[in-house]
Amino acid sequence: MKVCKFGGTSLADANQIRKVCNIIVSDSERRLVVVSAPGKRFDSDIKVTDMLIKCAKLAIAENNYNSNLDEVISRYAQIADDLGVPDIMNEISADFTKRLIKDTDNVKFMDRVISAGEDNCAKLVTAYLKSIGYDSNYIHPGQAGMLLSADFSNTVVLDQSYEKLAKLKNIKGIGVFPGFFGYSLKGDIVTFPRGGSDITGAILAASVKAEVYENFTDVDYVYSVNPKIIKNPKPITEITYREMRELSYAGFNVYQEDALLPVYKAGVPVNIKNVNNPTCPGTMIVKNRVHTNSPVIGVASDDKFCCIAINKYLMNREVGFGRRVLGIIEDEGLNFEHMPTGIDDISVILRESQLSDDAKDRLIEHITTELRADSINVEKNLCLIMVVGEGMSHNVGIAARATKALASVKVNIQMFTQGSSEVSMVFATSKADCEKALKALYEEFFEVRLGND
Amino acid sequence: MKVCKFGGTSLADANQIRKVCNIIVSDSERRLVVVSAPGKRFDSDIKVTDMLIKCAKLAIAENNYNSNLDEVISRYAQIADDLGVPDIMNEISADFTKRLIKDTDNVKFMDRVISAGEDNCAKLVTAYLKSIGYDSNYIHPGQAGMLLSADFSNTVVLDQSYEKLAKLKNIKGIGVFPGFFGYSLKGDIVTFPRGGSDITGAILAASVKAEVYENFTDVDYVYSVNPKIIKNPKPITEITYREMRELSYAGFNVYQEDALLPVYKAGVPVNIKNVNNPTCPGTMIVKNRVHTNSPVIGVASDDKFCCIAINKYLMNREVGFGRRVLGIIEDEGLNFEHMPTGIDDISVILRESQLSDDAKDRLIEHITTELRADSINVEKNLCLIMVVGEGMSHNVGIAARATKALASVKVNIQMFTQGSSEVSMVFATSKADCEKALKALYEEFFEVRLGND
Repeated sequence: MKVCKFGGTSLADANQIRKVCNIIVSDSERRLVVVSAPGKRFDSDIKVTDMLIKCAKLAIAENNYNSNLDEVISRYAQIADDLGVPDIMNEISADFTKRLIKDTDNVKFMDRVISAGEDNCAKLVTAYLKSIGYDSNYIHPGQAGMLLSADFSNTVVLDQSYEKLAKLKNIKGIGVFPGFFGYSLKGDIVTFPRGGSDITGAILAASVKAEVYENFTDVDYVYSVNPKIIKNPKPITEITYREMRELSYAGFNVYQEDALLPVYKAGVPVNIKNVNNPTCPGTMIVKNRVHTNSPVIGVASDDKFCCIAINKYLMNREVGFGRRVLGIIEDEGLNFEHMPTGIDDISVILRESQLSDDAKDRLIEHITTELRADSINVEKNLCLIMVVGEGMSHNVGIAARATKALASVKVNIQMFTQGSSEVSMVFATSKADCEKALKALYEEFFEVRLGND
Repeated sequence: MKVCKFGGTSLADANQIRKVCNIIVSDSERRLVVVSAPGKRFDSDIKVTDMLIKCAKLAIAENNYNSNLDEVISRYAQIADDLGVPDIMNEISADFTKRLIKDTDNVKFMDRVISAGEDNCAKLVTAYLKSIGYDSNYIHPGQAGMLLSADFSNTVVLDQSYEKLAKLKNIKGIGVFPGFFGYSLKGDIVTFPRGGSDITGAILAASVKAEVYENFTDVDYVYSVNPKIIKNPKPITEITYREMRELSYAGFNVYQEDALLPVYKAGVPVNIKNVNNPTCPGTMIVKNRVHTNSPVIGVASDDKFCCIAINKYLMNREVGFGRRVLGIIEDEGLNFEHMPTGIDDISVILRESQLSDDAKDRLIEHITTELRADSINVEKNLCLIMVVGEGMSHNVGIAARATKALASVKVNIQMFTQGSSEVSMVFATSKADCEKALKALYEEFFEVRLGND
């Protein structure tokens, strides 16, 4: 059994849905299908989910949302007509209308409304598959056992779901499962963060112990570097869960980072495939991969970090200094990424978005008064660059090649840490140097070099 | 006014003391002199302080210490005879005898006995200087105001000492001050850690705002690398306090690390000089130094570290994970050196001597149960190598040169951190690779290279 997930652009109109259904029926193992809500048909188009958010906000503000609701319904009606399944619209239209009656609190209401995009898309796809002669069934997430925590708009799966959902292994025909949401133990609809259909698919794949979780997107492969920065970068045919996690973390948006855990634990491989080019083998995310000449599999960057540098003479004599610094950071509700230390220095690197000017001032105040630091400097606009690859830490010379490549383009390394993760090394540079650094590292590790060295 | 400090080997016998006194009287600014206890005259000799420790231990165990005490007294008597000041022995002999009467608790008793070496050496040197016609005075640390915390054998100076000791600026003639000890507020003798005469000198130099603190040892210079590992290494003529501190920390034993703080705060330069070659300018420790071509001033290593590597999937999502790891480390009374972090990994590097097998087991138990880590590995026999130099962090390419040098001799870098300290970068390697790594780095940064890079 294969679990397949299709994203919003793959379901944006009737033509796309036909393409998706052709892919589904071309392999009889594709028996559990997760769908998103219809996405953009063209650049300036609006995703159904965004249209629903607008409806919900109008309803919460007690404004008239009828014309907005009509737009959503007519979007579905158009697709249903084009697919030749207009009858399904009675059910879909009634569902949207009913969900928008504001009879509960705002957070519950919002999750209930925005999940309607996926839910009704699943009904549409089911109807179409039936219409072309396939045994197809819409699966109700609540009845199937997709039980989630009551953290509205940011839920996580409850452990007991896996056992319940495992029964889907025995479904007849093709099951169509709406992505992005599930039910709390109290029976409320709760949604994952945006992009959560990847997570739904991963949970299902893990539950039924699928032979593979096919995640259809609009790229042929995951690439070794961001294709927006380097043209035609080297595709990755095989990558480990750990490598993929490090790259996702550092800005690779192909596959939702949270969607790795269920498949990683269950050992289900993930295949990133292109809905527009389904015969391309795509990228396989696996437990162990065949090693090639270079242990480096990808280079990624993310440029929204800042650094709090604290200096105090004889700091290393004070038992607990580092712990107290992190305690103060935590009191502000901040999460740190790295903490490089010198003898009398400690730096804390964290995502800049977390640190408002107020929080920054409070932090400096706390560290000054509680820890009596000699100096504190906050440096913004830092870029973290990760060089990722399994077993890299045991390969003599990777650090040398990376630092040499950065020096050759005169990029100043503001921080460099290697050693805790076996899968990556991290450089911090100024935001201004970020692209130059990424290019230099890509060239060093991926471009065929002629001549010596 | 110059403050001079002379170590034990410089005061080991009458000839050495004559040499020291010639140095003192050759410069009329040398008016405050700190002396250690007589050290070794030859390799198999025993230092006076070690002889006194033995006496004290015998007394504590209520064993007969008379022959041991006689040895100490005859050592002083020999020197006094050779210097032509036998009369001083009445006072010295009585003092040793009196101190060894066990009338207090063990820790107080120990400090009182072992400080006698310095105290009586100061009396000896004073008597000799007088005998050769100089106005010379023994200074009683308690009366002069060397007030210390009541942490026996590991004391620190109390802030109020500086003001009291500042009056020494106005002493007549040459003041001879015994190193290594002072008095608690209750009037008990308390000692610094071994090598504490460096600290006494630094406190005096800071108190009187000396133009320079001359620290006489038996080497011409501080060298850029340990001369036991690299033959004839490049001498350091000028080094900043911060650089010296990093090198002292990493195993440079020329100058006691704790002795930097008082002079650093007071801005008094330190001159490391050779008692056997006093015309050699030696090494100046200053606030700012003239920069040469390479920002690297020294390379040091210390091989007694271990690493606790903790892995947990999705660790970076857990606010407070790092703080809790450090809290557990602290509960065990351990002090950490570095904490490199990956996304799902955190490593804590600490001095191996701190971590008994019991402590290790408890630590693993705590981390496993409290933090539910997926895996914990303790790696012993780690060596930390520091490359030190002011302004290094802003010099593009130093990291590249260092990592390349290490790769060229196939040294695997287990951890590398740069960025928090502006003065150093730190590599961790296995103990087995330590010497090889140090040599490669020394060659890279200090040996004249012919030809291209």
